[in-house]
Amino acid sequence: MQVSDLGDHISRRYDQDLEQLRSDVLKMGGLVESQLQSAITAIVSGDSELGLKVAEDDYKVNKLEVDIDEQCRRLLATRSPAAGDLRLIVAIIKTITDLERIGDEAEKIGYLASKLAAMDRPSDSYRELKTLGNHVSVMLRDAMNSFARLDVDEAIRVAQEDDQVDEEYDAIARQCITFMMEDPRKIKRSMNVTWTARSLERIGDHAKNICEYVIFMVRGKDVRHTGEVDPTDIAD
Amino acid sequence: MQVSDLGDHISRRYDQDLEQLRSDVLKMGGLVESQLQSAITAIVSGDSELGLKVAEDDYKVNKLEVDIDEQCRRLLATRSPAAGDLRLIVAIIKTITDLERIGDEAEKIGYLASKLAAMDRPSDSYRELKTLGNHVSVMLRDAMNSFARLDVDEAIRVAQEDDQVDEEYDAIARQCITFMMEDPRKIKRSMNVTWTARSLERIGDHAKNICEYVIFMVRGKDVRHTGEVDPTDIAD
Repeated sequence: MQVSDLGDHISRRYDQDLEQLRSDVLKMGGLVESQLQSAITAIVSGDSELGLKVAEDDYKVNKLEVDIDEQCRRLLATRSPAAGDLRLIVAIIKTITDLERIGDEAEKIGYLASKLAAMDRPSDSYRELKTLGNHVSVMLRDAMNSFARLDVDEAIRVAQEDDQVDEEYDAIARQCITFMMEDPRKIKRSMNVTWTARSLERIGDHAKNICEYVIFMVRGKDVRHTGEVDPTDIAD
Repeated sequence: MQVSDLGDHISRRYDQDLEQLRSDVLKMGGLVESQLQSAITAIVSGDSELGLKVAEDDYKVNKLEVDIDEQCRRLLATRSPAAGDLRLIVAIIKTITDLERIGDEAEKIGYLASKLAAMDRPSDSYRELKTLGNHVSVMLRDAMNSFARLDVDEAIRVAQEDDQVDEEYDAIARQCITFMMEDPRKIKRSMNVTWTARSLERIGDHAKNICEYVIFMVRGKDVRHTGEVDPTDIAD
């Protein structure tokens, strides 16, 4: 074996390791998406059992986070990645933290679904939570797609969706206060609806964070805390 | 200059860089602690102006996060740290994310303080929020001390405080629901009290996360998601 072959081999192995890492992050994203979808279904259909299953399954998300974290540290220690590879690994360390916290929010929604299932249901089956839930669910899926394709334009578009999600959340929270003031017997249910909406709103925040890491990873520029994620701000 | 001198010089410079990094994290921790303290004072004393100042000053926390993040990436790229140094840097990347989110919660509490200041005040001046606020404030300070001194025993002790914080939060949330049911005119105020308590409870979570990074950094073992942070689980 010549030195150049060895170099190739090492480099191929390194590429494979990076590819494996990316693929594991996407797997974790897929699992979190499916947890979120189940949690929304549990709320809308009043399925207490499904809600509790989501809560129980959160350990799977946590396990993936610990595994991926370890892969990242191993690559940092053994490969001394530079430039784009280093940005990829740092972005992944941050992305999995946000994915894990989306998992935590899905877990909370699962518990809230089981509480709501035991209460009187409104005639519209929590339509507003379904709408908000689907919105953040699409945001999360698109954020992970932008990660998979390193698509900065998509990441910017998805990050900007967060303002809309915040408005939808505010509308639900205000409506809940109105319901509670009109009929104090609805206070407990309305509180659970508010908590669910709040968890969904936070999932939108985490999806936005992931988009910002994608932009940083591709462009090498940190766009967090710069106000709006503005395309002109991160032009090449 | 001899090679060995150069080696020493490079190593000294590296040590200085790591020391600077640790010192900046502690500075960020100090700023976040002071933001939290001001936010609690604003709630308790009904000081709307102070609450809004806390909210406005959050950009200082964000700026420190971005600066430290950049230092971490520079060290990873130029020094190829291994073992303990690598764990330190990875732990710092995570710690500053939690500190930044504590800053976000303090910002929210600042806004809530300005809302509460415009409402009728209860005779006890939100004593329960003051108690919870002081508790998480001490947790945060102790978590940062355990980071400064790499004190695993202290980190374990502080992480275990989080259960107590959760109980205090639950008690406040339950009490708020009772108040709202007794007197619907108190609904808006009680909601703001609930949100404040929730933000404080989350600050406790973030302080616990920081303790878990300290344990990981010193022992090289990831104790997240292992259930209780149990001293026997992370013995040498």
